[in-house]
Amino acid sequence: MAIITLTTDLGYKDFYQAALKGSILSTLPDVNIIDITHEIQAFNISRAAFILKNCFNYFPKGTVHLIGIDTVYSEDNKYLAIKYKGHYFVGSDNGIFSLIFDETPEEIVEINIMQDLKFLHFPLADIFVKAACHLAKGGKLVEIGIPTASIEQRMHLHPVIEKDMIKGSVIFIDSFQNVVTNVSKDLFTKVQKGRNFTLSFKRNETINQLSWHYNEVPEGEKLCLFGISNHLEIAINKGKASGLLGLHINDMIRIEFH
Amino acid sequence: MAIITLTTDLGYKDFYQAALKGSILSTLPDVNIIDITHEIQAFNISRAAFILKNCFNYFPKGTVHLIGIDTVYSEDNKYLAIKYKGHYFVGSDNGIFSLIFDETPEEIVEINIMQDLKFLHFPLADIFVKAACHLAKGGKLVEIGIPTASIEQRMHLHPVIEKDMIKGSVIFIDSFQNVVTNVSKDLFTKVQKGRNFTLSFKRNETINQLSWHYNEVPEGEKLCLFGISNHLEIAINKGKASGLLGLHINDMIRIEFH
Amino acid sequence: MAIITLTTDLGYKDFYQAALKGSILSTLPDVNIIDITHEIQAFNISRAAFILKNCFNYFPKGTVHLIGIDTVYSEDNKYLAIKYKGHYFVGSDNGIFSLIFDETPEEIVEINIMQDLKFLHFPLADIFVKAACHLAKGGKLVEIGIPTASIEQRMHLHPVIEKDMIKGSVIFIDSFQNVVTNVSKDLFTKVQKGRNFTLSFKRNETINQLSWHYNEVPEGEKLCLFGISNHLEIAINKGKASGLLGLHINDMIRIEFH
Repeated sequence: MAIITLTTDLGYKDFYQAALKGSILSTLPDVNIIDITHEIQAFNISRAAFILKNCFNYFPKGTVHLIGIDTVYSEDNKYLAIKYKGHYFVGSDNGIFSLIFDETPEEIVEINIMQDLKFLHFPLADIFVKAACHLAKGGKLVEIGIPTASIEQRMHLHPVIEKDMIKGSVIFIDSFQNVVTNVSKDLFTKVQKGRNFTLSFKRNETINQLSWHYNEVPEGEKLCLFGISNHLEIAINKGKASGLLGLHINDMIRIEFH
Repeated sequence: MAIITLTTDLGYKDFYQAALKGSILSTLPDVNIIDITHEIQAFNISRAAFILKNCFNYFPKGTVHLIGIDTVYSEDNKYLAIKYKGHYFVGSDNGIFSLIFDETPEEIVEINIMQDLKFLHFPLADIFVKAACHLAKGGKLVEIGIPTASIEQRMHLHPVIEKDMIKGSVIFIDSFQNVVTNVSKDLFTKVQKGRNFTLSFKRNETINQLSWHYNEVPEGEKLCLFGISNHLEIAINKGKASGLLGLHINDMIRIEFH
Repeated sequence: MAIITLTTDLGYKDFYQAALKGSILSTLPDVNIIDITHEIQAFNISRAAFILKNCFNYFPKGTVHLIGIDTVYSEDNKYLAIKYKGHYFVGSDNGIFSLIFDETPEEIVEINIMQDLKFLHFPLADIFVKAACHLAKGGKLVEIGIPTASIEQRMHLHPVIEKDMIKGSVIFIDSFQNVVTNVSKDLFTKVQKGRNFTLSFKRNETINQLSWHYNEVPEGEKLCLFGISNHLEIAINKGKASGLLGLHINDMIRIEFH
């Protein structure tokens, strides 16, 4: 059975996500609809991108990932369907795709299955669903859109590397209040070259040791590790790191190697 | 595969909605269970009705919509199964159906598959599920109940029309804090007869223009439009209208045509 | 179609529960994944146990219940797969199983499908999913683990029975703020022997009557009943008992028979 995943800011309390699912089932009765989440904060493209980037490849190839963030029609807001690493993505060209993909997608089309987009109130149900179901049924990208080479670019805050130092920042805080930075394991290892390190943040907080698991320090103590996302993460064993350490999205962190 | 949708106030944090789903799957293994929402505020029949009214017809005909609000047994609380526009509904006769349906249903039965309702603790699992699965399998209404003509009536607050004016009220606030009124597009158009209008609310707030999309005014500015529900909606482009404008459920709004 | 249920503290706002589902669907495409809940408070084993204990047997026999609470690797944290009353359970041996089961399980194995557990970051996806899908496909317990007889014991707070009295405590508060105690219907009936009773809690609150339904007392009044969980429950008709009566988890209650 084909799989369509949903990542939206529609919430679970209104009728919108239900209308979206009904619309999918009316178009394609035999499909497995999986909620990635409907609890993206309105218009929070960075968070939606980080979430989808970190889970899409757990799904089987051929899965269609529908992204319902910032889908309101405007003259500049193109709707794209994309093939990337064997998965399909349908969403608005608002920069989110540049945050999800590390490499160039296999194929990109600008969806052109409807005219008069201007008067649609619910493009998610009216356009995105049609495109997603077409792909879930095995249809081709070129049958629903015009090939295009470019996607809207949106800047990540990349870590800055100085000789013996990485300057990074906080990009995600999960429900456990673990604090995820933009320093990937690859980057860390490349700059570290086997040396010791000191991770510093806020005024005077430092960590000198990498843990493998959250429970390798006593309960209530801080630690850092490369978690499921493969990014450097600051956590507290059975505690809420973001609140307790005062670390928020975009806060700077610094790693010195010695 | 048959579809059963769920609209309840059971929440996602207890075992009730899981017991409900388990009960459905034990009765009918091949069924697609779709959550409309389990986050209706306890006993909020109006909100549940508005949500279901605005999404049920996105689903394929034949879908069974199970409504789990206010299901506790009492001598006056009849349990109904209804066919309406090719869809099936199962729920308590607490007035919710009169708020969902604009027209007379095709068929109504009072469910009589069990005696001794009085001693049931979980009518949702014990009665509603049996009725819903019967209908999802293609069974007939008359096989699970006694035909009846009437449903409990519950009054909408209808807009009041005076010569060149509509007086309406706020009936729904969504998760984006868009403010939905009880003025439908049909009513508005009929009274407007092509004239200009002034929408007034709170002390001194007015809007003179209909937008098509939320982004047609600058960010942070208020607008009105006919949204997905086809009701007049007051919103703020990328802002939270209910909080910022101080508009709440049942607040009055006024539209003057000139 | 096989069913796998999920009970975790992963929440709905991150990518973890989606990664878990993707991982299941990549291993076993034809499976029905049902969320019991992902909103267990982090590490709240008692709550997770109470929820699962009260809903698992609504599902068909053969269902696999995956429990994702406190799954981080440590040398003492064994991963178990268990058969109990025809259902399968996969989870950490952190005491949760002793809280779910009233009787001895049919079969228990310590999962041994992977070595080097120490370096796994996401045992839920890497081990639990493999075990759960194996069982969902009809595989045997002994094919994924070593038979073991014991599970970690965790103490319930059991009610204390004195001659004409039961002393119990609050073990669960649901989303309606109904207050569930550890006094089961069986225990109550056995000690009551047909006599009258006085239920006391907080300073001076008493209830002398068992209700069958929440609506048997006037709105806003307190009552007690045996609810869906078959435990003595203190509630307020259409009101929030926990908040209004000041009753919290672990608070004591007393029932005197006379």
